[in-house]
Amino acid sequence: MKFLIDCLGGDNSPGTNVSGALMGLEKYPELSVVLIGDEAGIEAELKKTEQPVDRSRIEIVHAPGVITGEDRPTDAIRLKKDSSMVRGIRMLREDPAADALLSTGSTGALVAGATLRIGRIPGVRRPAFCPILPTMTGGIVGVCDSGANVDILPEQLQQFAVMGSRYLECAFGIERPRVALLNIGVETEKGDNLRKAAFPILENTPNIHFVGNMESRDLLSGNYDLVVTDGFGGNVLIKTTEGTALELMKKLKRDIYSKGIYKLGALFMKKMFREEARFFNYQNYGGSVLLGAEKLVVKGHGSSTPSAFFKCVEQAHQMAASGMNEKIAESLAALQSQPV
Amino acid sequence: MKFLIDCLGGDNSPGTNVSGALMGLEKYPELSVVLIGDEAGIEAELKKTEQPVDRSRIEIVHAPGVITGEDRPTDAIRLKKDSSMVRGIRMLREDPAADALLSTGSTGALVAGATLRIGRIPGVRRPAFCPILPTMTGGIVGVCDSGANVDILPEQLQQFAVMGSRYLECAFGIERPRVALLNIGVETEKGDNLRKAAFPILENTPNIHFVGNMESRDLLSGNYDLVVTDGFGGNVLIKTTEGTALELMKKLKRDIYSKGIYKLGALFMKKMFREEARFFNYQNYGGSVLLGAEKLVVKGHGSSTPSAFFKCVEQAHQMAASGMNEKIAESLAALQSQPV
Repeated sequence: MKFLIDCLGGDNSPGTNVSGALMGLEKYPELSVVLIGDEAGIEAELKKTEQPVDRSRIEIVHAPGVITGEDRPTDAIRLKKDSSMVRGIRMLREDPAADALLSTGSTGALVAGATLRIGRIPGVRRPAFCPILPTMTGGIVGVCDSGANVDILPEQLQQFAVMGSRYLECAFGIERPRVALLNIGVETEKGDNLRKAAFPILENTPNIHFVGNMESRDLLSGNYDLVVTDGFGGNVLIKTTEGTALELMKKLKRDIYSKGIYKLGALFMKKMFREEARFFNYQNYGGSVLLGAEKLVVKGHGSSTPSAFFKCVEQAHQMAASGMNEKIAESLAALQSQPV
Repeated sequence: MKFLIDCLGGDNSPGTNVSGALMGLEKYPELSVVLIGDEAGIEAELKKTEQPVDRSRIEIVHAPGVITGEDRPTDAIRLKKDSSMVRGIRMLREDPAADALLSTGSTGALVAGATLRIGRIPGVRRPAFCPILPTMTGGIVGVCDSGANVDILPEQLQQFAVMGSRYLECAFGIERPRVALLNIGVETEKGDNLRKAAFPILENTPNIHFVGNMESRDLLSGNYDLVVTDGFGGNVLIKTTEGTALELMKKLKRDIYSKGIYKLGALFMKKMFREEARFFNYQNYGGSVLLGAEKLVVKGHGSSTPSAFFKCVEQAHQMAASGMNEKIAESLAALQSQPV
């Protein structure tokens, strides 16, 4: 198993990426990695680490260009040929032994590059992005699509449901993931034209466990494993959840610091607040996956810690080892042979 | 000035509605109210209250039927003719002296009923719903539309921007409200076909202060006064914000009660937590208004307290006294005479 590691573009690159990759090598003996980025920087990380370094399983590719949040994604993919991300995407396409690309760089560029340059699983109309959030019951929920596809067809929502279901089974061991359609009410007939057309299609899709419409307020309830939506709605859903949680925690902190007695009280609750912060730190739940691409593409948070990036390695390993993409291809083929 | 008060359908009806209406009568000498609902229940509330009751400014209309959350909105409007809400809508349409209808009942039924039965301001394609949320900087932000209109045209987003701007000026005294388009990125070219078509239209709309795209994570930032969106996106935006805040506060409470030392710490912060709960209680910021209807329709939270319902009365008074609907009509007329 061979993973390509984009070692630039994250807040703590290349340290985080190199360190997370080394943790992966230690856990999975069958794994080898290609570290792509600034060679000197990568070598420096390898020298200063206290983790075991098995150089026979590590290749370094020098590609020092960085794609930043300021770059326009499609321009960056076309023009920044010496960047670690573009180089990684090219290697993923051209090297038959490469199983996955993992990056903490620009989400837009990674999605654009992978969508344009990596082939699709047969039957997939367009790849979709599937981040993971923690639920209030201690589990997780995936949201597919979260921004890669706007103006979609009802059949694409069906593909998101199939791909996301195989993903949750393979990467997280969730059996019969409960799939919901994001809507403005739970009743069957709710929604706009897209949702109304998609509902009966989802109801009649084999190989998924469709449980009906979900209102956005129930995202974190733990009653659903996968929410399917167009990329516009998914983007609003994810960013509103993260934004509200972040603003609320910031407000709490500000309010605590506003008075001595609150600060005193907070001393007793230090451990609890630390756990709350950890809970709402989405990177602890793994990266976002681009589903439907012929090869695995995993996006870790820009602010990933080494252990958060290691989670991405674990996720990629689970997907590769379980043959997720083959299972997605089989499920999609079953749809096409289905009587309409 | 004459307001119709739907006194059924809220969690604490008719008490809340009667009490809030009495507070309105006390504050605004020019106001009279029609209390619609179960006559005996309303009379009982009037008897037991300690607020001043000026019977010459109060009319009671007996209409004891209730529309509940279980009723299908359009069916309820058609079939429940003896309900306080349907009666209120009919009176609003038929009584030239009636300025507004205020209700804490079913949102779906109120929007459906008012959209179907109340005329529109000239030029309005369809009325839109505009709730208000508190921002982290102590202000408010309106979201229009929040669910009354799905599958819309770019021109409707323009109408939402115009109507919402006049609303924030008239009801809350906000000068030059900053209007943003809900989108999946702040760059001009972002979004689906609807957003891409709407952006240049909004840029060229007179009588509004358009500041560009807004990502959903910035809703509570205080940088925007009005967010315009299709009803699907607006519904997801509002319900995700409320849902996340609610789940987070619930989790905090659960975690505090899980350990003695946390409970002890929380004792010092009792006042703070009470203020947080108040802050995130959306009813304290007033009701949601159906913009574009010929007469004023205000929806208070189902769980409104008397003072929250009084806020709705104040809002309606501000809108009526300032001639908001006439101003909306003027602004829309200016659009139509604009060279394309």
